[in-house]
Amino acid sequence: MAANAVAVAPERSVADLNALMPYASVSRYFGNQVIYDRERPLAAIYRVMRGRVRVSRWPVDGRQVLVDVYRAGDLFGEGALIGAPSGSEQAVAVEETHLMSWSPAGIDAAILREPSLGIALLRALLERGADFERRLESQALDNVQRRLARALLRFGERLGDGGRDGAQDGKLVMPPLTHVLLSRYVGTTREIITHYMSQFRRQGLVRYSRAGIAIDRAAMNTWLRAQENGAFPAKRIPE
Amino acid sequence: MAANAVAVAPERSVADLNALMPYASVSRYFGNQVIYDRERPLAAIYRVMRGRVRVSRWPVDGRQVLVDVYRAGDLFGEGALIGAPSGSEQAVAVEETHLMSWSPAGIDAAILREPSLGIALLRALLERGADFERRLESQALDNVQRRLARALLRFGERLGDGGRDGAQDGKLVMPPLTHVLLSRYVGTTREIITHYMSQFRRQGLVRYSRAGIAIDRAAMNTWLRAQENGAFPAKRIPE
Repeated sequence: MAANAVAVAPERSVADLNALMPYASVSRYFGNQVIYDRERPLAAIYRVMRGRVRVSRWPVDGRQVLVDVYRAGDLFGEGALIGAPSGSEQAVAVEETHLMSWSPAGIDAAILREPSLGIALLRALLERGADFERRLESQALDNVQRRLARALLRFGERLGDGGRDGAQDGKLVMPPLTHVLLSRYVGTTREIITHYMSQFRRQGLVRYSRAGIAIDRAAMNTWLRAQENGAFPAKRIPE
Repeated sequence: MAANAVAVAPERSVADLNALMPYASVSRYFGNQVIYDRERPLAAIYRVMRGRVRVSRWPVDGRQVLVDVYRAGDLFGEGALIGAPSGSEQAVAVEETHLMSWSPAGIDAAILREPSLGIALLRALLERGADFERRLESQALDNVQRRLARALLRFGERLGDGGRDGAQDGKLVMPPLTHVLLSRYVGTTREIITHYMSQFRRQGLVRYSRAGIAIDRAAMNTWLRAQENGAFPAKRIPE
């Protein structure tokens, strides 16, 4: 019951938001075009209408962390609402992308006019917070291999073809994310990602094709559960 | 300017929330009393009026992650608003603690009556999200020693005496968090925390006393910056 409620809630929030966000003009970005970064400060909250957006952070020592990849229906740049400096964050269009955007003052005014927008935004951003919490838990407890397994399942479900409407033949097909990008999400090196991806391939858990990366969702979940139960003690290699 | 805005915003949100949250009855908890867990499902969002609350997560394999310690003025249990199951999360009063609580329906009704409550809640929870993002970044990029340094600064600023109103003699004094608790926040073992705490003591960055742990904020920040610039290459020991 409880697990069910969680699976359903985001979809409801998305529908609510669709109906409640006021209309705003649409900006178009081409692939690899920067939306905000150190030089172009974050001043608006964005909604992806079409395409995909990659948000990364660049801490002082120059290494990069992939925060997430956002697709149609997702909000990003919500830091604008609390005046967060975009200094260390960068958003880039992955492909041709259409975005609606709202200034913080515009959002406040819209909530004052239509308070249920406040409720819907609150829910949508809480879903994101819960997702960050699960990632923190995984970063703290899982080894690199399990973090990679969870990242593949997550991107398969979020970005994949079979995602929202159920997988085809139990497979999640996601667009080909590079090993560099996966390493920036998982928090390790490209080499270690390549090592574990080969291992997952040999175990039949993932398959590469021209369309992307096919993940055997059921088998991957079984593998994760077996790991958690200690059936296959996690092998720790230097991260 | 931007850094300033970030430092000021949470205080403003707290003031807004104080004024806007409707009155609710107060429940009292004694030290170590469970507020919610697997058996007592999360059904309300809480606000700490007095005392402190420790929120942890227990993933399947039995190890524990410390999500955070909340003090007077903080909200927690916001997962109730999205129907998140409390199965793997537990909230416990650290000492005698007074809490106000609101059901999800009660919060929705309050926002519909007073839309600026929606705006204030949105800001408060976005601050939390930004904090989780910074922690994710640290988990992904920092070694254990740097994660510990950041955790000490954070708890010193949040829970310490000199926190909100500026440190005394540049020292943050925080209540004595056990090494076990720190290890659950940083994501490592108690032994490794003890190892690095001794190192920080020898370097004069922290000092133990009966009142708690005194952190030399300026020196700790200098040490962190030096690490980031590679002046002292991080020594990686198995995590």
